[in-house]
Formats: sequence, structure tokens, C-alpha cells
Amino acid sequence: MSKINISPRISTLPLSAVRKLVPYANETKKKGVLIYHLNIGDPDIKTPEAMLKVLKQWQINPIGYAPGIGEPIFLDALLTYYHRLGQIFVKKEDLIATIGGSEAVAMALFAVTSQGDEVLVFEPFYSGYLPPAHLFGVKLVAVPTRIQDGFHLPPKKTIESKITTKTKAILFCTPGNPTGTVYTRQEMKMLVALAKKRGLFLISDEVYREFIFVNRSHVSLLEFMTQIPDQAILVDSLSKRYSLCGARLGVLLSLNKAVIKGVSIMAQGRLSGGLIDQHLAAKLIDVPHSYISAIQKEYRKRRDFLYEGLLSIPGVTMTKPEGAFYCMVSLPVKNAEQFCIWLLTHFRDNNETVMLAPGAGFYITPGQGKNEVRIAYVLKISQLKRCIQIIAQALSAYNTQVM
Amino acid sequence: MSKINISPRISTLPLSAVRKLVPYANETKKKGVLIYHLNIGDPDIKTPEAMLKVLKQWQINPIGYAPGIGEPIFLDALLTYYHRLGQIFVKKEDLIATIGGSEAVAMALFAVTSQGDEVLVFEPFYSGYLPPAHLFGVKLVAVPTRIQDGFHLPPKKTIESKITTKTKAILFCTPGNPTGTVYTRQEMKMLVALAKKRGLFLISDEVYREFIFVNRSHVSLLEFMTQIPDQAILVDSLSKRYSLCGARLGVLLSLNKAVIKGVSIMAQGRLSGGLIDQHLAAKLIDVPHSYISAIQKEYRKRRDFLYEGLLSIPGVTMTKPEGAFYCMVSLPVKNAEQFCIWLLTHFRDNNETVMLAPGAGFYITPGQGKNEVRIAYVLKISQLKRCIQIIAQALSAYNTQVM
Repeated sequence: MSKINISPRISTLPLSAVRKLVPYANETKKKGVLIYHLNIGDPDIKTPEAMLKVLKQWQINPIGYAPGIGEPIFLDALLTYYHRLGQIFVKKEDLIATIGGSEAVAMALFAVTSQGDEVLVFEPFYSGYLPPAHLFGVKLVAVPTRIQDGFHLPPKKTIESKITTKTKAILFCTPGNPTGTVYTRQEMKMLVALAKKRGLFLISDEVYREFIFVNRSHVSLLEFMTQIPDQAILVDSLSKRYSLCGARLGVLLSLNKAVIKGVSIMAQGRLSGGLIDQHLAAKLIDVPHSYISAIQKEYRKRRDFLYEGLLSIPGVTMTKPEGAFYCMVSLPVKNAEQFCIWLLTHFRDNNETVMLAPGAGFYITPGQGKNEVRIAYVLKISQLKRCIQIIAQALSAYNTQVM
Repeated sequence: MSKINISPRISTLPLSAVRKLVPYANETKKKGVLIYHLNIGDPDIKTPEAMLKVLKQWQINPIGYAPGIGEPIFLDALLTYYHRLGQIFVKKEDLIATIGGSEAVAMALFAVTSQGDEVLVFEPFYSGYLPPAHLFGVKLVAVPTRIQDGFHLPPKKTIESKITTKTKAILFCTPGNPTGTVYTRQEMKMLVALAKKRGLFLISDEVYREFIFVNRSHVSLLEFMTQIPDQAILVDSLSKRYSLCGARLGVLLSLNKAVIKGVSIMAQGRLSGGLIDQHLAAKLIDVPHSYISAIQKEYRKRRDFLYEGLLSIPGVTMTKPEGAFYCMVSLPVKNAEQFCIWLLTHFRDNNETVMLAPGAGFYITPGQGKNEVRIAYVLKISQLKRCIQIIAQALSAYNTQVM
């Protein structure tokens, strides 16, 4: 009998930076310790009532397949959403509903690459891009950005120096996860010019579009889409906007008909997204603007509170995040992952601790981000206050006891 | 500027055999024509009340992520289900909840292969295996089965003749889609022996487990799993059993810890399955046995009715399906796909027509299945009666007018 081996490609799948410490957290919870989750962007804001009402009033029976590309009522609602954003050029046939933004990223990567091709990302980048890249044999190539620049884009020539004959696309996220950076109009123009010049796809992940805390508006790839119709792919998601992370609702939007055709065949290949989730999400057009503006206000308050609080801890450095609900924070420790594990396994203050995402998971360049963590400020101010206390005490204890 | 091309791998993605005629059907529907859908296994049976009640009583707010590997309440329910089946060896850690059976197939294929590896399938086979194989660069190799054998397995040596150094697994479906064939204990033993001898994985797709119309029980791979713990992977789904196709609920079950670890990382990579769907499905343990037995009785009646009815049409041949709710039917036409398209575009009887799935889509051997169609008997007897009338009239008209 031959030896049974699983595939090397599955045994080398990268573990999610956000979730790799979950086993430690589970052990800690079993002991009755309360953990504040700053490690994952799972908002605590309530889902809109208009959406939840769909569940209470559910009539469709049996719960049959939705069309692969999306349930018509959901696609119609998405179209209305983009039109209300002012992007009236968008047509229904430019949209594919996906199973979360994560599927939209995966589909976009598959559509624009062959096995072994390269896609540029700006480091630190959302670690969720690694698994689909790995599944489809795509090499993510990091273009470094710097904490002292607020993780804004480097000069065009730095980006160009990373482009090879295998480079097919630039994948970026604005407002940024994990950085909170919101690209300026100038930066977006530069990316568009670069795409034109070098014949690359731009894949813009804008799932945090509504979360902007600076006095300039979000500049979407949508604004440039008719200029580079064959090269632009928008990735979107309802998860964060309406607190629907567990209802798997994403979007891929492109004017490139070949991309849309290919992605629609991919979508048919996995048969259907969730019927219930899509009907619920179709109510997005009934969610009052006050819902979003209240969330915006709340996250802005949290950002300000967290920023002040963290900076008051000796040795902690960060730049003020401009959007989304994340920030990369540099800690006065050598190995932030060890510190994150220690927080879960050893540290307790009044039987409470915090869970952070180790920063190195958002880099692929070896050695980068070792002393950083990503924090998602998806908790109430009162809880954030407690988190800051715990982090401050833990850092002090760690640097005395452990280092 | 370089030319912008999408990837060859997406432009060569196989179109779903079941859905490729959907554009024709949509055009026809726009003209007010009623189409009976025999092309897709989307059951008309109602979803269990105990499950729908979960929606009416929904309390969880916000709708946050479920754990990547599955919501605990759903995994617990699945465990109870397998224990009730008599498979008491199954433990919770052997299970991964997936986004439909289709994701479970994709994950299993990724887990056991490298790019370019081969997996055996018995032709005709479920066309839904083609897209994930294509996505992950897996070559499906067809082992032929014959309509006159009721699509039962060929002799062991025929299967062995298709095994190469690249063969990593045998993927099969019992009860079979599209054949309705239920493998005997003898056949299952043969597959297990072959897997042992040649060091292959067995991936058993048993999503139609409950639909058996012969006087022998379903023989599951679960019965052999402790004999070949490292080589057996079960793929399962709640879609057909509880009429939940649009609630994306699948399962991957294996005792191979490396497979489960790898698949759990894949599952984390796409963050979460549907939270609502999983809570709804967790009620499977409250669905009375009478629900399943009523469905079984209903499908058996339909099968008998359809079988008699189709065989009464001159030139139609088929074997009596033993399970699932599909059958492969040989029609007296040269090109069944052309006939299926013609049914949608040209034929009307009292402004009604039927949609069938062209059989060739369930084969990869060129030229095979050209005069066959797959029929899913997911409609009421009264509707099936009408479908048989339409098919009979259409065949007569087609062979006079067109051929």
C-alpha cells in the first residue's frame, strides 16, 4: 500500500492572522476568563431592523437555489445603492453577488491570473488575501508602505520597481484593513495611471467605504471605472456596513464583460449564494441614512478614544487611522505574536484579558511587523477603555516578567 | 499599453450542464411561456416547519461571523444526525460545515491533489465536479459505466486500468446524480479494497442518502471509514434532504486529521458560512421522521410514474433509477442538447414547454451521452404527467419538423 499523503498545497495553506490564536482563546474562555475581542472586525453595532424584519416575515418555501450570479431582488438593490452613490453608469449586468467579500476577492484573483502570476499588494495588507492567492497559485508581491507615512502609497517608481512580466494586477483596500488609511484622489489617480501605463488590472476592495474619519470624501475606483473599463474590478461587501458579517454578502463589479462572464460561470459552478441572506440584504435600500451616519459617528468617537488611549501607553506608537475600523499599532515588545499569545494564556486583570491580531500576519516580507498588532475597534467606548487599561497593565507586566 | 486579457483559466471554465440553457429559458419566460423545470434538482417539497420557525423567532443581533469550521449548534446537530444513523464513531472534530455540498467537494479535491493530479469519476457523473476540479487544476478521469448495467460499477480491473501515478482519489456519488444508481455493498467493498490496494482517497458524495427506492439499504462510506480512516472523505449536504438548496449547508467528514486540519484552514480562509442558515439547519434534529418518510414515499411514486410514462414514448430508453431523484434518459434524437434548446426556443404546447439538462454535460469523454438527457423528478405527479405529454409531443414534432 502506498503512503497516503494530503496535498502539499493544503498543508502549506496560510493560517489566518486574525484567527490563528483562536485555539488559545478557546482554552482561556473555558477557564471562565472574559476576553475582549479586538482581533477581528466583527462589529457590535445592531443589524438594521428593516433587514431583520425579512426573517420574521419569511414566506418563501421551499428555500430553493438563488441564481448563481445572485438573487434578482438583491442585484436590484445593489444597483440602486451604486446609483445613489452617484455611479449611474453601473448596470445590473456589471454586478455579481458573491458569498461575502472574500469570495469576490477570490473570484477577481482567479479571473485575472494564471498559475504563478503575480499581484501587487501594499504591505501591511489584509491577511484575507493570502488564502485565495494560495488556492489559485497566485504570488502576492509586497510593496512596502511606512507607519510614519500613515501607510499611504509610496512613490510611483517604487511601485513600478515591483512590476515584472508576471504582474497582472494591483490589489488594494481603501479605507484600508489593517491600516485605516484612506487613499487620496491623488493616490487613486496614480494607481489608475499606472494601470493604464503597464496594462494591469486594479482590484479595489472598498468594503469599508462608509467609514471615513477625515475631512475628505472616499475616492472610489468607481469614479475612474469608465476611464479604464477593462481594467477595473471593484470588490464590495455588506458585512461591515450593515453588521452582516455572518450573512455572506459580497459583490464583484466590473465593466469588463469577459471578467463578468467568467466570474458568472464561477458563480454558477458553486450553484448559489444564500437565498435568505440575499433577501434580507435586499432591504438595504430601506435602511435610513441615519443608520449609517450614526455608525460613522460612533466609530469616529471610538477611533478618537482609542488613539488617545493607546498613545498614552509608554512605548506605543501609531498614526491616527483615517477610516475603516482598524489600526496598526507598534508595541514596545520584540515579538508581538508572543505577547498576544501570552495575553491569552497568562495575563489576567480581574479575570479579563484582550485578544489582538499579531501584526506580522499582515506582512509577507520576513521580519516585518514583528512588534505590531492590528486592533479592530468594534467595541463600545466603555469596553475600549477597559481594553486600554488591560493592554497598558499587560505591557508593563510582560516587559518586567517575560522579557 | 499592454493588451488586457483575462486569465485563460477563467475563459475555459466549464459551463454548468444544468444551467447552460438558462439564458434560453429566461427569453422564453419573458414571452409568457410556462416552463416545467426538470433540469435542476431544486425540490418542490416544503422546508420543515421546525426550521422555518427559526427565522420567525430570530434573536441574534448583530448577525456576526460564524466560526470558519461551522457554528457550534449546527456541528452538534450534525453529530447527532450521524450518531442516529448508527455511525457512533463520528466525533465533532471530524466534521467541517461547508457552504453547500459543492464547497465540500471543492475542499476535498483541493486537500488530496496537487496541480495536475488526477481523480477518477464514474461517467456519467455529476457535472458540478467539473468547476472545482478546473479551479484547482485537477484532471477528472472518466471510468465508463453503461446504461444497460443501470450505471453500476464496471469490474475492478476496468477501474484499475485508469489509475496512473498521478491518480489521488476516486470521487463518486451514491445514490447517484445523474444516474439514480445506488451502489451495492459489494460495489462499496470493491472501492474500499481498491483504495487500500492502490493508496487512494475515496470521496463519497452521499447528499441523496435518504432517497432509496430499492429493497436494500444505502451503503455509506461511513460504514468503512474506520477501516480506511486516512483515506475516506464523506461529502454531504442538507439541501435535498430538507429542501434547503438555497441555504448553503454542506458537510465534509473525515477521520484523517491532516485533511480536517487543512480543510479547517481553508474554511477559516473564507471566514464564515451563513450564520442564519446554520441556525435554521441546526433544527434538523427536531424534524420528525415522518417528514423524511413522506418525502421518500413521494419521490418513489414520482419515479414509478415517470419511468412508466417515459418508457411509453416510442424510442425512449432508460433503466429504472434506484435512488436520488434523477435519471439519465436516452432519447430518439441525434443531438439531445439541440433538442433541449429547441424545446425552449421553438416548441410550445398550450403555451407550455419543459426544460431538460443535456446528457453530454455529464460526460467528459467526447461524443458520449449525446442522445441523453438528465431529468430531475422534483415536480408533482400532475406536473410530471404534463411533462411526459409535452416530451412525447415534442419528440414527435421534432423528428418530423427538424430532423
